[in-house]
Amino acid sequence: MSASEQTNWQSVHDEVLRRIHTREWKPGDQIPKEVELAEQLGCARATVNRALRELAAEGFLDRRRKAGTRVSTHPVRRAKLDIPVIRLEIEGRGQKYGYGLLLSERRTPTPEVCANLGVSAKSDMLHITSLHLADRKPYMFEERWVSIDTVPEIVDADLSAISANEWLVLHAPYTKGDISFSAVLATETEAKILRTHAGAPLFLMERMTWEHDAGITAARLLFAPGYRMHSAI
Amino acid sequence: MSASEQTNWQSVHDEVLRRIHTREWKPGDQIPKEVELAEQLGCARATVNRALRELAAEGFLDRRRKAGTRVSTHPVRRAKLDIPVIRLEIEGRGQKYGYGLLLSERRTPTPEVCANLGVSAKSDMLHITSLHLADRKPYMFEERWVSIDTVPEIVDADLSAISANEWLVLHAPYTKGDISFSAVLATETEAKILRTHAGAPLFLMERMTWEHDAGITAARLLFAPGYRMHSAI
Repeated sequence: MSASEQTNWQSVHDEVLRRIHTREWKPGDQIPKEVELAEQLGCARATVNRALRELAAEGFLDRRRKAGTRVSTHPVRRAKLDIPVIRLEIEGRGQKYGYGLLLSERRTPTPEVCANLGVSAKSDMLHITSLHLADRKPYMFEERWVSIDTVPEIVDADLSAISANEWLVLHAPYTKGDISFSAVLATETEAKILRTHAGAPLFLMERMTWEHDAGITAARLLFAPGYRMHSAI
Repeated sequence: MSASEQTNWQSVHDEVLRRIHTREWKPGDQIPKEVELAEQLGCARATVNRALRELAAEGFLDRRRKAGTRVSTHPVRRAKLDIPVIRLEIEGRGQKYGYGLLLSERRTPTPEVCANLGVSAKSDMLHITSLHLADRKPYMFEERWVSIDTVPEIVDADLSAISANEWLVLHAPYTKGDISFSAVLATETEAKILRTHAGAPLFLMERMTWEHDAGITAARLLFAPGYRMHSAI
């Protein structure tokens, strides 16, 4: 796409948003057809289409094949969260990254991991715990299960040199992933590792990935107190 | 866009992803030019372009104007979070929504609100606290500041009948928003309102919105223990 085409759909996008914001088009209103808008704004129909698709993805418009396009009455706003490799997240904050492998052992998975990741109780898995540091302070405590059946190469990886997080990003692309966020209290063990006190509030990120239906990994990422995840909406 | 065009770029998307997953194209590899791919796959160059843009947005490809397109070495995966009106979130879980206004008063903003939202200390603001219920149980405690300077109509809204959250979605579309997530401990007051105990782990969502540079609202949304935010990645 050239720079001028880019400006074009972007300016249609902005003009439509202006009409929504000034209530020229009110919530629930049907907006003009793409051809009409293209004529009004003096551009190609494809340009209008691109702009409207974007506005629908952003939650401002409801597009239905037969009913036409309406201004959302209850826009579901979407936040995009970037989930980078943890090393890059820390370095991106201008801090020095550090990493330590705490434990790596072949084990049969717990019933919880089996249920969540959809793997059999006889699966061959690697159980890994590690600590990620920012400027030498504990930043995130990672507890992870990796399926050796799905990713056999991980057995030969030197996980004391590269984190499982980073190794998996490089070697085990996934087709399906799942993420959730919640608040928990630090247990005695977690508090010791994160150098805080038991009962401190921790931000918990749980991630699972699959290659089609084969479970790759299930990770429990516990961030040290004070962690805030941030995004534009 | 017709259904067949949709299928078309989607199938190019899937084929490119297949090549990345099977390591036919490895991290860091330069992939063929759009024209070459279009020829290989027997489709229009625009279709390939649409698919590659999507894959770049999903973090699988790095596209640089001059250097061409490469398979990401450190893909930043993006999670899309839907931020619906809280009533619809609760009803979407199949639960009965309830709502109670706790307090609504005109006040000068706190220094913290001024700094975060970028409003003056002399601003005319509405300070609102309310409780959202799911099946009669506390679900979320909302503490919110709304700028009367920016949204004067809120003074006439009946906030005992409609939540400020929903009123704002209907009446004050924003051009810029900001969201963050963290874990905190319930204070005595918050615990009483959410019917839990002081020191319980709470998921905190902080949201701010602006119409261009004019601050609209700053909200502190505290979810009852057990809340989990979830998304596909």
